[in-house]
Amino acid sequence: MQRNFHELLQNKWNEGKMICVGLDTDISKIPDFKRVGNSIRKTLFRFNKSIIDATKDLVAAYKPNTAFYEQYGEDGWAALRKTISYIHEVAPSVVVICDAKRGDIGNTNDGYAKAVFLQLKADAITISPYMGKEANEPFLQRVDKGIIILCRTSNPGAGEFQDLPIAIGKSHVKSLYEIVAENVSQEWNYNNNCLLVVGATFPGELGIVREIVGDMGILVPGVGKQGGDLKAVLQNGLNSKGQGLIINSSREVLYASKEADFAEAARAVVIRMNNEIASAVELVK
Amino acid sequence: MQRNFHELLQNKWNEGKMICVGLDTDISKIPDFKRVGNSIRKTLFRFNKSIIDATKDLVAAYKPNTAFYEQYGEDGWAALRKTISYIHEVAPSVVVICDAKRGDIGNTNDGYAKAVFLQLKADAITISPYMGKEANEPFLQRVDKGIIILCRTSNPGAGEFQDLPIAIGKSHVKSLYEIVAENVSQEWNYNNNCLLVVGATFPGELGIVREIVGDMGILVPGVGKQGGDLKAVLQNGLNSKGQGLIINSSREVLYASKEADFAEAARAVVIRMNNEIASAVELVK
Repeated sequence: MQRNFHELLQNKWNEGKMICVGLDTDISKIPDFKRVGNSIRKTLFRFNKSIIDATKDLVAAYKPNTAFYEQYGEDGWAALRKTISYIHEVAPSVVVICDAKRGDIGNTNDGYAKAVFLQLKADAITISPYMGKEANEPFLQRVDKGIIILCRTSNPGAGEFQDLPIAIGKSHVKSLYEIVAENVSQEWNYNNNCLLVVGATFPGELGIVREIVGDMGILVPGVGKQGGDLKAVLQNGLNSKGQGLIINSSREVLYASKEADFAEAARAVVIRMNNEIASAVELVK
Repeated sequence: MQRNFHELLQNKWNEGKMICVGLDTDISKIPDFKRVGNSIRKTLFRFNKSIIDATKDLVAAYKPNTAFYEQYGEDGWAALRKTISYIHEVAPSVVVICDAKRGDIGNTNDGYAKAVFLQLKADAITISPYMGKEANEPFLQRVDKGIIILCRTSNPGAGEFQDLPIAIGKSHVKSLYEIVAENVSQEWNYNNNCLLVVGATFPGELGIVREIVGDMGILVPGVGKQGGDLKAVLQNGLNSKGQGLIINSSREVLYASKEADFAEAARAVVIRMNNEIASAVELVK
């Protein structure tokens, strides 16, 4: 059976689910009793499995970030591949976003698309816009996959280039991130498979992007440890249907507790966020 | 012994060497007689070894692109790691650039730095500027490594964002790639470890970047199959010392022949380029 990111995600949105758990698994923060000897591969997977088992009925998506696995070389890759395979097995209705932020010339992006969609079997990938639409065609042509393009990122220094004023005509300017949002929604999205990344730490910019892109999906990282406020995200980011957001939390969920109850504590965090979302969506209706 | 990218590269420049061979190894283009059964790992490494053996006395750098290895998962990673280890063994004076084009928030870039510098043991990495200096600190703090930032890339659609006019004051504009060059040379480069990527396919832009950054190193991909002209690159890109360039060629060298003489043919291409460089440097003096 061919998985389709967009259908699966829409189903979750219809159930009121928007939370994405970022599987940015840091081995130094895994509770000691979950370690498997000296095996990094087994320890990473065993911890991820506990988090997935505890949250899989509550979430729309999981989002492992490749950096947290690549730092362990082949062992990390094996753990990442096994984690994604396990999600497909126990939670086939939940989408998997490979947070890779890749971006190269077309010939090379073809290799990244194979790595993420064929090797890792993810449903979606995050990419950088910097090299333009033409270079990203190997991603954009994947109709059944989610192509999630960086727009206004969550980090404190995001504005260095993303907020630069682009001259439009004689006296009008727009920020670079607004041009990215315009180009993606009007030109890159010919297969209706694009989403954008806008950080929770910048709710004003999230509102501006929402105005530009209509009902398009937006992935919002930065809630929790990075300081983004869930209420502000919902107020500024929901689309006209009270949907359209993938709200990511990583560290706040994964490390909700370092004790034996870490998985229950992770579940409790997601339940709390789901309740906040349900209230906010009621207000929008 | 601690390797230092900048010292090693300067030594090569002092010898008049500027060529970088891009180890973008495509398994479908490897001559049949170099295949090792069904082992992707062994076939990739065996081909790379032949190219390295045939060119190692002629080049300044090797630049494997991660996409070409990641598409084969753990097998590809193992081949990439073994390739880099082999270069350090047989050509310790040649630098290895991991062409990864990574870029994420700081916490995450720390993982990529570990992947590229500790796991793969590369001497340099390519990164994307989009998230700004603050996010890229985990790279910029590596004094002994080369941090190579995308500026004006070689692909036909590079201008979509990189050429956008940034409003400076009332009537003055600069292109985004010029602002990237300014910020990197003036602010990111506090450890004197930054270089920029400017495509050979845009020699005019290369000249503009050279004016902005003074003698800073520039990595120039796109000579050969992508259509960049070596003479134009040298005329526009050499610094005041007749140095300062890492000129990359991938497909033109790797697949110079599909026959038994493929390694000799690769060597002949590098020799021809080295001769062209020597003539151009003479003219600059």
